[in-house]
Amino acid sequence: MQQSDRMSFTEAERRGVYRAIYERRDIRAQFLPTPIPDHVLGRLLDAAHHAPSVGFMQPWDFIVIRSNTIRQAVHDCFLEANRQAAGIYTGERRALYESLKLEGILEAPVNLCITCDCSREKGSGVGRQSDPATVPYSTVCAIQNLWLAARAESLGVGWVSILDLDRLRGLLGIPAELVPIAYLCVGYVSEFPANPELESVGWESRESLTRLIHFDRWGERDEQRASELFEPVLLKGAQE
Amino acid sequence: MQQSDRMSFTEAERRGVYRAIYERRDIRAQFLPTPIPDHVLGRLLDAAHHAPSVGFMQPWDFIVIRSNTIRQAVHDCFLEANRQAAGIYTGERRALYESLKLEGILEAPVNLCITCDCSREKGSGVGRQSDPATVPYSTVCAIQNLWLAARAESLGVGWVSILDLDRLRGLLGIPAELVPIAYLCVGYVSEFPANPELESVGWESRESLTRLIHFDRWGERDEQRASELFEPVLLKGAQE
Repeated sequence: MQQSDRMSFTEAERRGVYRAIYERRDIRAQFLPTPIPDHVLGRLLDAAHHAPSVGFMQPWDFIVIRSNTIRQAVHDCFLEANRQAAGIYTGERRALYESLKLEGILEAPVNLCITCDCSREKGSGVGRQSDPATVPYSTVCAIQNLWLAARAESLGVGWVSILDLDRLRGLLGIPAELVPIAYLCVGYVSEFPANPELESVGWESRESLTRLIHFDRWGERDEQRASELFEPVLLKGAQE
Repeated sequence: MQQSDRMSFTEAERRGVYRAIYERRDIRAQFLPTPIPDHVLGRLLDAAHHAPSVGFMQPWDFIVIRSNTIRQAVHDCFLEANRQAAGIYTGERRALYESLKLEGILEAPVNLCITCDCSREKGSGVGRQSDPATVPYSTVCAIQNLWLAARAESLGVGWVSILDLDRLRGLLGIPAELVPIAYLCVGYVSEFPANPELESVGWESRESLTRLIHFDRWGERDEQRASELFEPVLLKGAQE
C-alpha cells in the first residue's frame, strides 16, 4: 500500500494537473507589472529543467531578460516581423489581424529566451540518431513544463513567435549554432481568459477532437467509436 | 476575491502540478498489461488537445494503436533502427548501451503515434511565418500535456525515438506530407522509478541548472546569482 500511495495522486492533486492544462492561456494583454519573486521564477526554471529529454541530453539554456533596453530592442524586432506577417492578409481578415494583441514583451516583468544546443554532448547521442529533431522537441517539453507550472503559480506566459530568429540571436548574443526555440513573456495577470483569444475574437475555432483520432492506422477514423472515449460530464467539469 | 479564487490554485492542486513534473518518467521496463479504461485514455487525449498551438492551429492527429500485429511490426522497426544506433558505441559504452531497455512497444497495452500536419489551414498562418518550426513545436506541447496528465492518472509513458520515420509512415499508413512527431507507449506501471533510468545506470547525469541560466544576454552566466533563484528546502521537498 505504501508503494501505491506514493504512486497515486489525490483527487486534488490530479485536479491541479488538469486545471493547469485547461486553464493555461497564451497571455498577451493581461500582464501586470507585479514583480516575480526570485524563488518563484526559480521554481519555473527547475520545472523546465525536469522535462524529458532525448538520451537525458538536457539541450536547453535559459536567458532571463529583465533589461528594459533589451526588451525594447526585442519589441522593435517583433514590430518589424509583424509588419511583414500582416502582409499576407487582406480586407476584413487584415483588419482583424491588426487588432490582435500578439505579445506582452514590454508589459511582462520577465522575458525568457529558451535555446537549444543540438550538438551538446550530454547523452552521448542516445535516441537521437533516427530523428535529430527530437533534440529541439526536448526543449519544447521543457517549455510546456514551465508554462503549466506558471499557471499553478498564477503566472501567465505568452510565446512570441513573430520574431526574426537571426536578429534575435544578434540582440541576445546567442551563438549561431544554437537555436532559439521560444521567446516567452512571463508575469502575473489581471485574469486568465476563459477561452483562447483567437477563439474569442472569431479568428479560429477549436477542432473537434473526435475527428483527429485514428484507430491502429492513419485514416481509420470512426467518430462514433472515438466519442466513446469521452465522458461528457467529467470533461465538462474539468473545463469549467 | 471571487476572481482571485478562480485564478489561484490550492496548495494541493499546485503540489499536483509539481508532482507530475518531478515524478514523470520515460517508462520502458515497468509496463503492466492492465487495460487502460476508455474514459481515462480519452482524458489523456483531451489534455493533449488543449495544448497551446501557434495561431490556434491544432496541427496534431492521434493514432491509437492496440493491434498486436501493428505493434509487432513497429517493434521490428525499432530493432533494426536500434541495431544501427548501437554501431556508434564501442567497448564498455557499447555493452552498457546494449543493456539498456529503450522501449515498451509490446508490453504497453496502448501505443500512440502523434503526427503533425504542417500545412493544416486552421489558424490561417498566424504566428508561424517567422519560424515554421513552431508548428511541430505545438505538437510537442500536446505530447507533454499528455505525459503529465498520464502521471496524474498513474499511467506511464515512454517515447520511442529510435525508429525510421519513413518506415513508420509506411507501417501506419501516414501520408508522406505529415510528420510523425512521437511514438509513445502508454500503460500502468509497476513503479515510477525515483530517477531517470539513464541516470541510474550511470549513462548520464543531471546538469546543474545554475550553469544553464544566463542574465539578459547569452553568456552572462553568474552561478552565484542564479543559485539565489532557488530555495533549497522547497526544491528538495518537491523532488522527494
